[in-house]
Amino acid sequence: MANITKKVSWSSRPDETGATGETTPLLNGSEQPRHSRQMSGEGAIFHIGRHGAGDLEEEMTTEEEFLRGRPKEIPHNEKLLSLKFESLDYDNIENQLFLDEERRMSYMGFRCLEISRWVICALIGFLTGLIACFIDIVVEQVAKVKYNVIKENIETFTEAGGLSISLILWAVLNCSFVIVGAILVAFFEPIAAGSGIPQIKCYLNGVKIPRVVRLKTLVVKVCGVICSVVGGLAVGKEGPMIHSGGVVAAGVSQGRSTSLKRDFKIFEYFRRDTEKRDFVSAGAAAGVSAAFGAPVGGVLFSLEEGASFWNQMLTWRIFFASMISTFTLNFVLSVYHKKPGELSNPGLINFGRFESDSLAYTFYEIPLFIAMGAELLLCLMSAVLFCRYVHRPCLQVMEATLVAAVTAAVSFTMIYFSNDCQPLAPDNTEVYQLQLFCADGEYNSMATAFFNTPEKSVTSLFHDQPGTYNPLTLGLFTLTYFFLACWTYGLAVSAGVFIPSLLIGAAWGRLCGILLASIFSSSSTWADPGKYALIGAAAQLGGIVRMTLSLTVILVEATGNVTYGLPIMLVLMTSKIVGDYFQEGLYDIHIKLQSVPFLHWEAPATSHWLTAREVMSSPVTCLNKIEKVGTIVDILSNTSTNHNGFPVVVQVMEGDVPAKLCGLILRSQLIVLLKHKVFVELARSRLTQRKLLLKDFRDAYPRFPPIQSIHVSQDERECMMDLTEFMNPTPYTVPQETSLPRVFKLFRALGLRHLVVVDDENRVVGLVSRKDLARYHLGKHGLEELHLAQT
Amino acid sequence: MANITKKVSWSSRPDETGATGETTPLLNGSEQPRHSRQMSGEGAIFHIGRHGAGDLEEEMTTEEEFLRGRPKEIPHNEKLLSLKFESLDYDNIENQLFLDEERRMSYMGFRCLEISRWVICALIGFLTGLIACFIDIVVEQVAKVKYNVIKENIETFTEAGGLSISLILWAVLNCSFVIVGAILVAFFEPIAAGSGIPQIKCYLNGVKIPRVVRLKTLVVKVCGVICSVVGGLAVGKEGPMIHSGGVVAAGVSQGRSTSLKRDFKIFEYFRRDTEKRDFVSAGAAAGVSAAFGAPVGGVLFSLEEGASFWNQMLTWRIFFASMISTFTLNFVLSVYHKKPGELSNPGLINFGRFESDSLAYTFYEIPLFIAMGAELLLCLMSAVLFCRYVHRPCLQVMEATLVAAVTAAVSFTMIYFSNDCQPLAPDNTEVYQLQLFCADGEYNSMATAFFNTPEKSVTSLFHDQPGTYNPLTLGLFTLTYFFLACWTYGLAVSAGVFIPSLLIGAAWGRLCGILLASIFSSSSTWADPGKYALIGAAAQLGGIVRMTLSLTVILVEATGNVTYGLPIMLVLMTSKIVGDYFQEGLYDIHIKLQSVPFLHWEAPATSHWLTAREVMSSPVTCLNKIEKVGTIVDILSNTSTNHNGFPVVVQVMEGDVPAKLCGLILRSQLIVLLKHKVFVELARSRLTQRKLLLKDFRDAYPRFPPIQSIHVSQDERECMMDLTEFMNPTPYTVPQETSLPRVFKLFRALGLRHLVVVDDENRVVGLVSRKDLARYHLGKHGLEELHLAQT
Repeated sequence: MANITKKVSWSSRPDETGATGETTPLLNGSEQPRHSRQMSGEGAIFHIGRHGAGDLEEEMTTEEEFLRGRPKEIPHNEKLLSLKFESLDYDNIENQLFLDEERRMSYMGFRCLEISRWVICALIGFLTGLIACFIDIVVEQVAKVKYNVIKENIETFTEAGGLSISLILWAVLNCSFVIVGAILVAFFEPIAAGSGIPQIKCYLNGVKIPRVVRLKTLVVKVCGVICSVVGGLAVGKEGPMIHSGGVVAAGVSQGRSTSLKRDFKIFEYFRRDTEKRDFVSAGAAAGVSAAFGAPVGGVLFSLEEGASFWNQMLTWRIFFASMISTFTLNFVLSVYHKKPGELSNPGLINFGRFESDSLAYTFYEIPLFIAMGAELLLCLMSAVLFCRYVHRPCLQVMEATLVAAVTAAVSFTMIYFSNDCQPLAPDNTEVYQLQLFCADGEYNSMATAFFNTPEKSVTSLFHDQPGTYNPLTLGLFTLTYFFLACWTYGLAVSAGVFIPSLLIGAAWGRLCGILLASIFSSSSTWADPGKYALIGAAAQLGGIVRMTLSLTVILVEATGNVTYGLPIMLVLMTSKIVGDYFQEGLYDIHIKLQSVPFLHWEAPATSHWLTAREVMSSPVTCLNKIEKVGTIVDILSNTSTNHNGFPVVVQVMEGDVPAKLCGLILRSQLIVLLKHKVFVELARSRLTQRKLLLKDFRDAYPRFPPIQSIHVSQDERECMMDLTEFMNPTPYTVPQETSLPRVFKLFRALGLRHLVVVDDENRVVGLVSRKDLARYHLGKHGLEELHLAQT
Repeated sequence: MANITKKVSWSSRPDETGATGETTPLLNGSEQPRHSRQMSGEGAIFHIGRHGAGDLEEEMTTEEEFLRGRPKEIPHNEKLLSLKFESLDYDNIENQLFLDEERRMSYMGFRCLEISRWVICALIGFLTGLIACFIDIVVEQVAKVKYNVIKENIETFTEAGGLSISLILWAVLNCSFVIVGAILVAFFEPIAAGSGIPQIKCYLNGVKIPRVVRLKTLVVKVCGVICSVVGGLAVGKEGPMIHSGGVVAAGVSQGRSTSLKRDFKIFEYFRRDTEKRDFVSAGAAAGVSAAFGAPVGGVLFSLEEGASFWNQMLTWRIFFASMISTFTLNFVLSVYHKKPGELSNPGLINFGRFESDSLAYTFYEIPLFIAMGAELLLCLMSAVLFCRYVHRPCLQVMEATLVAAVTAAVSFTMIYFSNDCQPLAPDNTEVYQLQLFCADGEYNSMATAFFNTPEKSVTSLFHDQPGTYNPLTLGLFTLTYFFLACWTYGLAVSAGVFIPSLLIGAAWGRLCGILLASIFSSSSTWADPGKYALIGAAAQLGGIVRMTLSLTVILVEATGNVTYGLPIMLVLMTSKIVGDYFQEGLYDIHIKLQSVPFLHWEAPATSHWLTAREVMSSPVTCLNKIEKVGTIVDILSNTSTNHNGFPVVVQVMEGDVPAKLCGLILRSQLIVLLKHKVFVELARSRLTQRKLLLKDFRDAYPRFPPIQSIHVSQDERECMMDLTEFMNPTPYTVPQETSLPRVFKLFRALGLRHLVVVDDENRVVGLVSRKDLARYHLGKHGLEELHLAQT
């Protein structure tokens, strides 16, 4: 075990473990040796298996004491792995009830289910599209009002002098919007902060992030996005669409809203993690599709971020949802813009039409593009320095307000001191232009860059005639906007990072184009600044988010022209290779800082010498096929272990002898059983007792009550529970000698939550769960093991 | 078991089983009860497990006798499942040797491997691109010569009268090309017939199709394609590119050519099915990319057809190979066309630029598009009627010649009787135009449609000005070309079906456009025939090949304009839904007729009542950990069973008692062990004997010698072999009660070849292999079971 630089540490905070409830973090299959030893004294629970790493235990105890000496609040740390996250169960619980139901169902039944899935996907696409429209229209209307107020004010005071009043008006307007947005996020639903993409990534990876797909989150997200975009922050409204799509999908597919306490009694079949996760991936794709008008890109995003098992029918449904989504948006916006049927707005952001004739690239430009891909690293290096965590809601609101005020002030100053006047194009009526100190018939080009919504600025950077911006304006703008965007990122407001990245990239790309044109003075024909703006935008965005295939397709679809496919690919690849050399992508950094047990695509390369024996949690709390209710209640109430999956064994004898595996049962199932009092004795006495159906489990999904809310009398504690019908009788198992990559592959490919480790006689010796696998990662010094912590 | 309409039948042909050799079809894990009973008399092999379906056995015997009464040659039948196909092993054989090697490897070692993978992908892309260039250039040059000869001849005889001589010249020229192509295919490499896409689909699905990725196949394929395209058949050169890419990948990734007996001693690590299959999927993607200039479409094609487990790094490498491929093609062709650096030929077929301004579609046209998607079914219904199987090489050549002659004659007749004269466009110098009986300055438009290569005809149907073709010409052309294409499909020539489908679709699409324009006389602005030609082409192609996501992207990339994304999607979806209602896609029909054990994405919906117990093959031939050489030789030589995987068990006792599973070993491994005489006794006597390394297994891969070629003396037969080090000690297992969908999911997701079924004491009771799963499918009367046959 020489390669491992850190040992497991179990940081427990005993003062907190008492307060269990629905929100209490549940440990997932892990166990604290100290507690389990106490428990085994009761003789009711079987601790099966030998201590795979017996000599490790002492170290752990020492480590534990060491940790207790440290400050209680463990800061966000990428060397930790949080235990508070539960896993989703992508594996069907194929118990007797489930099999009975499936076997009763006719072929037509399955056809109907399949049709329902399509209907749900259509609904997801439709609603996601509508939400995108709503955001777009509200932002546009409010921004127009704001713009007119400020413009009038500035025009009044430009001549009269005293522009500081305009500045104050501007700052106050912006701040008030941002304050509303920040209050919503900070006080009502903190999970709605940011773009939500890391959260959706985690969800699709199989980690249950609490509250991430709730209706309330959606409402706060939508309002928050509108406020922060209107508030003039350096943010975009595209990223949050992905999260919104996911929430819509999770809601629609369940046919009810737990928050609103409405159950429409439809789609009951889909009330389980497996199906829900599939729909959420469709929702995320629909979100991408609505945001960028990129349905194929949306599908690829879902697959790149979420899928482990590629299923053709699923992919196709995702595609359908994406298509419906972009189509809905397109249609509604075309009606809104009073050009019904014209379908020219496939996404929230449109890059505008690139005429390929004038912008064709030659072979000799390709190295140039690659160089631009590499250039981004400068920007990237500092991007994460600004990631910080302010935890008190009041402070978060204040910080957001400050950023809004500073943004307004900086923008104003830049506009004020800029003297880059450009002639007013006669047809350009939609873009907000400010005359300021320019001559009549001219406008201030710095003001255009700052005053517009970022989407419009991106478009104008791509398409405006060469000479519209002078290099100094662009350079200053890039720098300022870059620092503002960095500062804004991580604020407690709902907002995306796509558009600021695109904008910064487009600005420095255009700058490159202008410089090139001035160096090769003859080359003004090929060095079109718009082309370089596009390449720069791709490089910047690619460096930040580090997606490749999906981002290429998204950008190609957004530009509406595949001619740029190859250069965009090359640029994205270069920027990923260069970026990965220094640091992970923004979303991955975010996930790491949150200590989420995220499973990557493959086990670390050098982990072949680890086997299931070393990786697994052991000993395991097992249950008998027919188990005493009291024992079950005690196990479930044990807040220090908080297991979620329990191997069911054939009782051989009491004590520490491993017993034969015969099934696996989940905490949630046990809770439902306890709630319905499915006890052997009661079944005998009340012959008419209703048999428990799958429906009972589905009704309780996904918010299973905590064990504390279930009252079990002293008499009932003596009853027995027969788990045979409810357990999954065929859980996946691996032998102890299986190598980590092999365990990982099985776990990842099938989306498991628990994997039972058995010996050669099929006796339970351990349990592998997500955090056991996620804790190994490749660091600078070879394979490293993350600390487990309860933060 | 009421739902199953057919019982298992084991059609054996005892007269053929004697002739074993490399080419002999190997049974994969299946067993004939009759033979196994004879074998168990020898006491050396353990037949473990109980007969899961004891009462089934009598039925089988009856069925067997019944079958023996039938004609020996079992015709191609979609109700059969052939046993002659072996599986690929996508699961790593993680034995001691492998783990030792992996553990010895440093992190840098893994980095180097990863870099080699990228280098290989670059090479694959580069070579595939070069092959595409080669085909394109040769076809263009030869076609030009042919065209000039015929044109001169026709021009001479148009005035002199006696065009029948021209017809004969034309037919003879075409026939001679086709004869060469057909002889190559029929006599040298029959697997090179057709597009090769079904074969590559099977390979990526995990079925080893013999000779499909050999160098000889590639050479025959390339020459064959050139001959059939130049020979004027109704075929395209795009489909075969996918196969060619796959062969290139299989060759390059192994760092040697077994056919040429050259070993470059590089890339030895990749000499196993897992890695090879990954590279072949990259090759197929590179092929698509070169054919259509669609790198993203290529990646999606690979995934849609091949991948079960989506791996980000792999996908990215596939993307890289695709990119290099289209880029190579683009660059070489730009040099060839004397416009170096212009990069305007991303694929073999270019749809030409669609100017989106003039061709924008409105909302109201969408139902129209959908209707067009549904329309194709008319064409489709008859498409497969022409699928036929002529098996004698001579007949195949004659048939191909006949088709070539008829094609020439029909085309000539059509041109002769057509009087659709169009004015000669002044700038159209590249397209081959015939004046024939038209006035000076005009050309015969029917001749344009027939005389051009199909690619050029497609482009002209898309882009020529409205009014270029009259409706009668188009209608006649569509019908004729459709029947020619149907007849041509299934000939023993290398050729694809993409272009003929596109051409037929474009023709009737354009016809629709013209009719629409004449109905709504005012609508000539929107009913651009080129737009409808594109939609028609998409509908036709979608109906034939039934790909959705990948085909959408391919078409969008080929048109170079994403504006059409949505209508193309809708059309493809409609055509798939309508088509699936009647029949499977062409490739799937092809695969079914070949009785390939193809695994679909999911188990049939209504198969939950089947469990591993019913599905598995039982009893299983097991080996001891330390086994007698004679026994192993006997088992391997048993041509009636021809197992490929053998569970290794701890010997408990002789007889029919199941023994504990402790590993799994493959036939190929045993062959290598026997060849190197890795016997316990020899190791003792010769202390210096070299330890067997993974390299020895890799050197033998993939053409392991047959057991007959290995001489084992009588003395050696008494030796013992220790399998511990070579077997995979942790094979995946499932309990007997596991439902079929669950077994299927595990099998498919991990790309397994053998899955051991164990009882609750970890004793071997059965073995599930590909054909056990592929044999269940949903028919019209619920779940059906295919017959197993040795054809």
